[in-house]
Amino acid sequence: MSYASVVDVLAGKVAVDDTVTVRGWVRTRRDSKAGISFINVHDGSCFDAIQAVVPAELPNYQSEVLKLTTGCSVAITGIVVESQGKGQSYELQATGVKVYGWVEDPDIYPMAPKRHSMEYLREYAHLRPRTNVTGAVMRVRNTLSQAIHRFFHEHGYLWVSTPIITTSDCEGAGEMFRVSTLDLLNVPKTETGEVDFSEDFFGKEAFLTVSGQLNVESYACSLSKVYTFGPTFRAENSNTSRHLSEFWMVEPEVAFADLNDIAHLAEDMLKYVFKAVLEERPDDMAFFQQRINSEVIERLEKMVDADFVHMDYTDAIEILQNCGKKFEYPVEWGVDLQSEHERYLAEEHVGAPIILKNYPRDIKAFYMRQNDDGKTVAAMDVLAPGIGEIIGGSAREERLDVLDKRIEEMNLPAEEYGFYRDLRRYGSVPHAGFGLGFERLVAYVTGMQNIRDVIPFPRAPKSAQF
Amino acid sequence: MSYASVVDVLAGKVAVDDTVTVRGWVRTRRDSKAGISFINVHDGSCFDAIQAVVPAELPNYQSEVLKLTTGCSVAITGIVVESQGKGQSYELQATGVKVYGWVEDPDIYPMAPKRHSMEYLREYAHLRPRTNVTGAVMRVRNTLSQAIHRFFHEHGYLWVSTPIITTSDCEGAGEMFRVSTLDLLNVPKTETGEVDFSEDFFGKEAFLTVSGQLNVESYACSLSKVYTFGPTFRAENSNTSRHLSEFWMVEPEVAFADLNDIAHLAEDMLKYVFKAVLEERPDDMAFFQQRINSEVIERLEKMVDADFVHMDYTDAIEILQNCGKKFEYPVEWGVDLQSEHERYLAEEHVGAPIILKNYPRDIKAFYMRQNDDGKTVAAMDVLAPGIGEIIGGSAREERLDVLDKRIEEMNLPAEEYGFYRDLRRYGSVPHAGFGLGFERLVAYVTGMQNIRDVIPFPRAPKSAQF
Repeated sequence: MSYASVVDVLAGKVAVDDTVTVRGWVRTRRDSKAGISFINVHDGSCFDAIQAVVPAELPNYQSEVLKLTTGCSVAITGIVVESQGKGQSYELQATGVKVYGWVEDPDIYPMAPKRHSMEYLREYAHLRPRTNVTGAVMRVRNTLSQAIHRFFHEHGYLWVSTPIITTSDCEGAGEMFRVSTLDLLNVPKTETGEVDFSEDFFGKEAFLTVSGQLNVESYACSLSKVYTFGPTFRAENSNTSRHLSEFWMVEPEVAFADLNDIAHLAEDMLKYVFKAVLEERPDDMAFFQQRINSEVIERLEKMVDADFVHMDYTDAIEILQNCGKKFEYPVEWGVDLQSEHERYLAEEHVGAPIILKNYPRDIKAFYMRQNDDGKTVAAMDVLAPGIGEIIGGSAREERLDVLDKRIEEMNLPAEEYGFYRDLRRYGSVPHAGFGLGFERLVAYVTGMQNIRDVIPFPRAPKSAQF
Repeated sequence: MSYASVVDVLAGKVAVDDTVTVRGWVRTRRDSKAGISFINVHDGSCFDAIQAVVPAELPNYQSEVLKLTTGCSVAITGIVVESQGKGQSYELQATGVKVYGWVEDPDIYPMAPKRHSMEYLREYAHLRPRTNVTGAVMRVRNTLSQAIHRFFHEHGYLWVSTPIITTSDCEGAGEMFRVSTLDLLNVPKTETGEVDFSEDFFGKEAFLTVSGQLNVESYACSLSKVYTFGPTFRAENSNTSRHLSEFWMVEPEVAFADLNDIAHLAEDMLKYVFKAVLEERPDDMAFFQQRINSEVIERLEKMVDADFVHMDYTDAIEILQNCGKKFEYPVEWGVDLQSEHERYLAEEHVGAPIILKNYPRDIKAFYMRQNDDGKTVAAMDVLAPGIGEIIGGSAREERLDVLDKRIEEMNLPAEEYGFYRDLRRYGSVPHAGFGLGFERLVAYVTGMQNIRDVIPFPRAPKSAQF
């Protein structure tokens, strides 16, 4: 018995007239009056299902084939023939159908073949990969992930796994989840009535990380070119279509790099991964184009061909103030830009991706490198038409005295930054990096509106099923 | 100014007589009486440092070059020449030395050039990647990670990110960390005095995952060939050289596969990644061979060439009982094998990797597929000479009635398994998978004795620094 995946048969990798067995799940069954059935089987290897033409002569035609419903699992053995139907390359002339598993009570099968809302599908996160839309999203997600690893590997970067559990809260990037094994009904206390974390698992209060950046900087300051790709967490009570409590981040960090170096790295990386999706997943992208967002393919193609425009924050403010457009949030030098501003700049003013640079230092994190003007820091955001900010990065402050002053000005707990200061005490180097929210990237590429639909099992406030 | 990494210069990718700038950290400085200095610079791109020959004529020779110490960061510009020294291919005739960062008080620099114990290096997890040993480990770790992704991608598998935060404790694989935002000084209680988790962030008690398997099964039962590669957690108070509280797992899961299929998948994957390390990291492996374990290269080469021997658990027990060797733990049918047994089988009895199959069901998890003998399950472990168990896997019980009976027999909370049962109610398929502890793989490949030394920032009981 020779097995083949659906993608291989459809791509012509099995010779015509060869007999092959395909295994997967029934998408549809249609019976002709002439006494044959057409069964479409998908196995996740590509967007399309393969059609099997099943003759009534098969011994189990009446007893089983005619009872097949959406979701049943089967192995269909047949002869590969060129398909007469339009849009299909090859099909199977079935010589045998084996049923692995039936669908219990097909009338209430949650993935019955009709249009389901995305909200409904979220309730069935364990079954939704059987649908066209979630299957396509997960293949594109995989392609993006593989392309990211490949891009960095080919460019000499080392993947570094920064810790998930951390006892330091020194980035201050957001609210954190506590990780603990303390008995909640019997919390140990110190003499002064505080929680006694010395009795907790790690002997200190511990959290889930909000970013691997500070940790990975220590690897950049020894191995030069590194990146993280791992889960990060925010305990924020944000129930929006753009927020998750648990999401994956990509964070390259590069020694001897300045802001322009990582701006170009970001541009190169985005183009590389978009090209990979366009080349490797035309089937899934055609589906998104047709059913989700009619611009998804064109905007990726444009990104691949575009020269990203570099612009100073200060110039952007001037453009926004003089453009004659009314914004919900007024603009003046010193404010953080809102999505409406970012999208105006990228979509209307420039019509291309923008790398916005040199933001006011007062709206940015302590670790960003201060520019000589005393007002701005070497930070950048990549703004893409159709979404706004997709990447944020900066040069890191490598001068110990400047860093210390900033930590003091911002009233941060200096004692927490020992390891971070060490990198500046011992052979400090200019370095820079950026962060990319992986799910936002998947949502942008696929056109999916809600970020909960581009991660297998989304976690959000009051929601962590499965 | 043309920049190059150390690996490119040493590999001859920069033409002789070209001028190039290399940036990195000083490993050693040696001054000759003739008035020149030899500076070795590493940048993490390969094991070796590059030697720069610095003439006294440089304007900053007295003021800076002669003050360089281990760990200082520099850019050295020079002409590429063939090296006269043995073991080196190319070196730089320096025409300029720029110092980026000095080492504050070189006498107490924690990474001063002398032998440090691994325990000592763990105290400086942020600086230890500057050492030969940790740099080599992290390059090999990266190579293994890239090879794992590449192997699965080339074989048609999709990477699936299973959730880190989970509200179900249905695998029961070990003690779990709680994830919470409750105020520990004011824990909300129900009327009956229990903790009221409905007020917690996720509205239920939540934990860090111990395995992505149950989740990824739902993706195998729709997309056929999938794998996870992500962090997992154990809140066990095990302070050993083989345990971490946070570690990375690789878990492929394959629809329509049986135990033999995944046994072969495990063999193919191990050979693929070992071959990648031997081909891509000969420099680091030579170091491990010389300094850590004299067998590391030979045992990988043997694994790549070996035919893995398949053996039934029942046969293994007989072999162990009749081998005449005294074991610390006595052997009889039904016991779980200890490391001493596994290593005897792989190292002494067979002298090759063994795939041990069909274990007693009473020592294995509820989800493993029961064999027709009523006593064993379709489980397998891959035992490698020199380490023992490196992979564990099984066929999963796809028959709903058999699964339900097992859940009942083991007194597991049936209501927790709704999503898992659904996979068996709707188009159930035979499927199988395995788990590989990534850090144990890195330790095996490098010969490192303690698993805390093969992950950037190890987490263990009472220990989560940085």
